[in-house]
Amino acid sequence: MRAIGDDAAVLSAGTRTCLLATVDVLNESVHFSLDSTSPYLLGRKSLAVNISDIAAMGARPLYCLVGLSLPKHMSLDFVRELYRGIQAQAKRFKVALVGGDTVAARGVLSIAVTLIGRAEKRRIVYRSGARPGDLVFVSGTLGDSALGLALLQQGSPVSSRNHLIRRHCDPEPRVALGQALAHACLATSMIDISDGLAADLGHILEQSRVGAELQLEHLPLSKAYQRQCPSLCDDFYAPAVCGGEDYELLFTAAPRRRKAVAECSRTAGVAVTCIGRITGPGGKLRIFDSTGREYTPVKKGFCHF
Amino acid sequence: MRAIGDDAAVLSAGTRTCLLATVDVLNESVHFSLDSTSPYLLGRKSLAVNISDIAAMGARPLYCLVGLSLPKHMSLDFVRELYRGIQAQAKRFKVALVGGDTVAARGVLSIAVTLIGRAEKRRIVYRSGARPGDLVFVSGTLGDSALGLALLQQGSPVSSRNHLIRRHCDPEPRVALGQALAHACLATSMIDISDGLAADLGHILEQSRVGAELQLEHLPLSKAYQRQCPSLCDDFYAPAVCGGEDYELLFTAAPRRRKAVAECSRTAGVAVTCIGRITGPGGKLRIFDSTGREYTPVKKGFCHF
Repeated sequence: MRAIGDDAAVLSAGTRTCLLATVDVLNESVHFSLDSTSPYLLGRKSLAVNISDIAAMGARPLYCLVGLSLPKHMSLDFVRELYRGIQAQAKRFKVALVGGDTVAARGVLSIAVTLIGRAEKRRIVYRSGARPGDLVFVSGTLGDSALGLALLQQGSPVSSRNHLIRRHCDPEPRVALGQALAHACLATSMIDISDGLAADLGHILEQSRVGAELQLEHLPLSKAYQRQCPSLCDDFYAPAVCGGEDYELLFTAAPRRRKAVAECSRTAGVAVTCIGRITGPGGKLRIFDSTGREYTPVKKGFCHF
Repeated sequence: MRAIGDDAAVLSAGTRTCLLATVDVLNESVHFSLDSTSPYLLGRKSLAVNISDIAAMGARPLYCLVGLSLPKHMSLDFVRELYRGIQAQAKRFKVALVGGDTVAARGVLSIAVTLIGRAEKRRIVYRSGARPGDLVFVSGTLGDSALGLALLQQGSPVSSRNHLIRRHCDPEPRVALGQALAHACLATSMIDISDGLAADLGHILEQSRVGAELQLEHLPLSKAYQRQCPSLCDDFYAPAVCGGEDYELLFTAAPRRRKAVAECSRTAGVAVTCIGRITGPGGKLRIFDSTGREYTPVKKGFCHF
């Protein structure tokens, strides 16, 4: 739950530029299990999910602060590896780790990361700008992270080179794409996929007061997804529609800007796929299969295998 | 432990002004007990300790983000009261609550507050500026919070109007004083007292590479302290020297600015007392009683009754 209706809060700063700030808390046994990640990857991911929030506003991540609650049994090696992961991710995205508070905890490990970014005021992309007729785009591929988690829960090792497991443990925030889309004023609305395509598109629809129609066969699925999903999930599309934590960008743009969107995709080096269109005003999310039949996700925001 | 050597990190923003950011994590059973506070007061305090960090740099608090980890047994009423306390404190200091992440936790309640403030670059006060010959000042009174905690631990009710308990449960960040001192360029170094006078002055001495001599009989003690300390603590001065969480400002200033410091104290409506002087370069903290004998705190940073 976020107190604010967008991925990050926009703070007024100068006349032209704005600061953005976001906080995400990751708790052991709720958001991650120490059995299915390494402290290094956990450090990377805890920063990635925040960077992704800033990317989804079309902004540039700049500073981060880390509040770390450590149970007493945690080893110094563990903490070192966790921080190595945080530092490595920060370096990749030129984020300065400016502050922190490391404290003892009675319960389990908890990581609260605050990220501060900056953007030009008039280029910030909100969830509220989707208009009827806009096309719906998504970056990368969908559902990999949910399948990766399923594999980990079945006992696959974290160290595996399996694409799906990598996608779950070490997601890649789409900063360059978010900024390119914002800079060219292409995205009318944007969000990152943390809760799942259906749930996160739902946030855009709610904030923009529009509906949407998606085509199931247009959803971008990785080869690993296509190969491994049938053995992991009865419903072939459920992980793509409902699985969370892909941290891909989901955005809308006017149909006449389609070529410019493709150009941004090339520049940022990330595939972008058109998966449907915005309807309305008002209305809801409807997903159709190739025969024109409506598809109903198992449960919004969660993939129940 | 802070990753950075001052109460808040200074982020470069414009050419004249700077942003400051700080994060503090408060964990149940480590930083507070739900037996010895109310959710409303806990909310107020969780923001106060961060506001105090910003005040100690001479800056103005502006925005806050709250990361809340809630165990499942926590009632909605509890969370409402906690947020009412956060909101009330935010309003008092004109801080905008701009973001938050409220998540489930397996263990205990954890509150991570990030505060962002602003200051003129050249007026920011660091811990590193104390010079030999400077006078050492402290705002308000010392040791009340530690004695208040002792009373709570002995079973006094949170709702008590006891001054010491109020001071522990609802500390007052000295924002107006911090800003006045910074604006007049009076404080050469400053810190807020969270770990205790001896420990926090120790941070100034370390960062400034100086020593200090304090006079025990100059330490400002409240009437409640003077009345109740003898029944709570064998060493009459230990709570004032070693007790934490007073959130008073501890700062140094040149002797010739003494009148100007008194003027700031009047403007801000907070008593300021000169408790000693900076020695050095190098050296350490020495505390003397009225007979000229050196006083040794029981243990730095903690008051062991």
